[in-house]
Amino acid sequence: MKKKVLQENMKKTVEKVRTENPVCGSVTNTVTVEFVANAQIAIGGSAAVVYLDEDAINLGRLGKTFYINMGTLMPSHGKFVPIICRRFAEEKIPWVLDPVGVDSSQIHRDLLMMMKEYRPKVIRGNASEIIGVAKMWDLISDKFSGVRGVDATVDVASAREAAIRLARYIGGAVAASGDVDLITDGHVVVYSYGGSHFMEKITGAGCALGGVCGVYLTCADPLTATVTGHHIFNLAAALAEAESSGPGTFRSNFLDRLYSVSAEDVATVEIKIEEA
Amino acid sequence: MKKKVLQENMKKTVEKVRTENPVCGSVTNTVTVEFVANAQIAIGGSAAVVYLDEDAINLGRLGKTFYINMGTLMPSHGKFVPIICRRFAEEKIPWVLDPVGVDSSQIHRDLLMMMKEYRPKVIRGNASEIIGVAKMWDLISDKFSGVRGVDATVDVASAREAAIRLARYIGGAVAASGDVDLITDGHVVVYSYGGSHFMEKITGAGCALGGVCGVYLTCADPLTATVTGHHIFNLAAALAEAESSGPGTFRSNFLDRLYSVSAEDVATVEIKIEEA
Amino acid sequence: MKKKVLQENMKKTVEKVRTENPVCGSVTNTVTVEFVANAQIAIGGSAAVVYLDEDAINLGRLGKTFYINMGTLMPSHGKFVPIICRRFAEEKIPWVLDPVGVDSSQIHRDLLMMMKEYRPKVIRGNASEIIGVAKMWDLISDKFSGVRGVDATVDVASAREAAIRLARYIGGAVAASGDVDLITDGHVVVYSYGGSHFMEKITGAGCALGGVCGVYLTCADPLTATVTGHHIFNLAAALAEAESSGPGTFRSNFLDRLYSVSAEDVATVEIKIEEA
Repeated sequence: MKKKVLQENMKKTVEKVRTENPVCGSVTNTVTVEFVANAQIAIGGSAAVVYLDEDAINLGRLGKTFYINMGTLMPSHGKFVPIICRRFAEEKIPWVLDPVGVDSSQIHRDLLMMMKEYRPKVIRGNASEIIGVAKMWDLISDKFSGVRGVDATVDVASAREAAIRLARYIGGAVAASGDVDLITDGHVVVYSYGGSHFMEKITGAGCALGGVCGVYLTCADPLTATVTGHHIFNLAAALAEAESSGPGTFRSNFLDRLYSVSAEDVATVEIKIEEA
Repeated sequence: MKKKVLQENMKKTVEKVRTENPVCGSVTNTVTVEFVANAQIAIGGSAAVVYLDEDAINLGRLGKTFYINMGTLMPSHGKFVPIICRRFAEEKIPWVLDPVGVDSSQIHRDLLMMMKEYRPKVIRGNASEIIGVAKMWDLISDKFSGVRGVDATVDVASAREAAIRLARYIGGAVAASGDVDLITDGHVVVYSYGGSHFMEKITGAGCALGGVCGVYLTCADPLTATVTGHHIFNLAAALAEAESSGPGTFRSNFLDRLYSVSAEDVATVEIKIEEA
Repeated sequence: MKKKVLQENMKKTVEKVRTENPVCGSVTNTVTVEFVANAQIAIGGSAAVVYLDEDAINLGRLGKTFYINMGTLMPSHGKFVPIICRRFAEEKIPWVLDPVGVDSSQIHRDLLMMMKEYRPKVIRGNASEIIGVAKMWDLISDKFSGVRGVDATVDVASAREAAIRLARYIGGAVAASGDVDLITDGHVVVYSYGGSHFMEKITGAGCALGGVCGVYLTCADPLTATVTGHHIFNLAAALAEAESSGPGTFRSNFLDRLYSVSAEDVATVEIKIEEA
């Protein structure tokens, strides 16, 4: 994909979401759920969070997309998340996975192995989470380690191979978010620049990014949706940092900027594209 | 009820809550729970959110009111919410219902049909939710549709008849919140003006409004409590919008204004009253 | 402990957390969970909230500490919290207890009696909660009452004896937070001054303080960790109040200040130390 085509698609995606207000339902963690919803709304989408399979399936049908974040799993997730993933697979509803925690418990492992079968269309995590999923799904060898809770402890570059293999396996897009963000569809690898050091000083930046990619997935292909999400985050964060005296005011200013940045500026965030 | 009497009652209600710090317990959704609590506290009340019937009943007795929001239902809600609604009915503890989701799942339908029997004293929703509940309870015909997740998709005026019939059925007050808010006790219909377009750009504005009506219900009749809640929201939102550069800063400024607006100014927000 | 030694230890604790970014896992309530996590991150720590015993045990081992807050208990807490407390006791992993609700339901009572056996290393609550726990554990007579939901209704001074006896029983530190904060290890009683009246106008100030004490407990003794937590809160709150026009902006500014205050300034917050 040429850079110019991608940029044109991103601009259309940002504008379409602002015009059409599409809903992306979520199963997401209790810590960052409000920030996820506010970010989805700030970019022009609608949010709805659910704990019941029936609600999730209805929302998936309505929005033609869904977001599943594996943070703060409860025992009930072990039962209803497989039901919705299977249904999304049957009905070809694309969904975004944020594999928080990866293999930190038996429920996490069971859910991730189930998801290997039902295949999300987008996976977004930090480098260690992307490597962790690729290992669990036997797509790369066991040579990497270092998954530590919800933090990024591995450099994004080290996740390049894992991301490419995951993207080819799911037939969609995979992002390893970090200081620089790496996004790939298995054919090209896109790097997105910008952002702010405050993004690591608030909880939920990654979760909100996953939710925003889900909204963009309502009206764009997986690669475009995922790059657009990372671009608008990198741009809004850089602008918000300049206005903020710490992580508390940054959090508010960041939502303001997600709301107000121009589609043109999002599309032209600094980028590098290479062959996978 | 004369406009002047209503305004005098509103002023007293705002002041009484600020002086007496009454608690309104809640069963509410996981997305907006913090914003609900912060709004209740900002107007001078106390907040306590529960997931256990015993906690809910104790709080209902303590505060003489309660708030039930049907967003993000979990399977456990199907068991404990009927217990507390029955108890509130037996002990004549008035409670506020926010029927988020209306009939979006079997648990939603079961809970709403149970609530038809135990009757909340206040119902607050957007127009499509108010119409949805009136239909489920066979109070209006099936001619309306358009309930879509958590968003308002139907104009407030279209919910007038549904709101009046619901208010008469429950013997309390019903509000359809939107660009203009419609509140009725089945005898008069009150319209409250003001607000901000940013209210739709943050999650939880409606939930927080329901929680705030619950706090006012500790020391006012259902109509006064509900109109006061809508008035203080409309005034605080209009003031906050003028200070904000987007939804993130608006959210903070709005809480500041809920805290600082004068009782006199709340009571005299632009209003229209007509016979039902 | 001499004042100067305590101050020196506090300074080191603040700096060490900022350098080492230690994680403190939490079981905490759904209302304030995001604020807890953001406060833990703002002081330099990492946050992770869980609802599964396996996740909790792994995090306790990783961070060598844990935070348990008893707000918004769900039925599942009755099962998994005893498992993690027993394991923490067996593996000598110290944990912080915030006894929100005290004896407000049967699950609360059962959990607190279980915790009497497994002994947290730090207990932080308002005065009425500290008195309530000391009564339930038969450490003081039944003469006090007044526990009311999540609010402080009893003056901190009245909790002095209860706090000292609790601290001796657990062999750690106990804090009664209020206008002035009282912290004791059973040998000395420390009073920490400062803060802001806005702390009572936002939800979660106490919960976040408990979570922050948990982070400091990763690299300090219980008394130092607990005093450091209260000191940084008192300092940040006083600074934030001067910048804020209400509770909404205060909440953001407070996180900014937690992030930016100097270790030197935290260590030298006004303090009084007396023998227990």
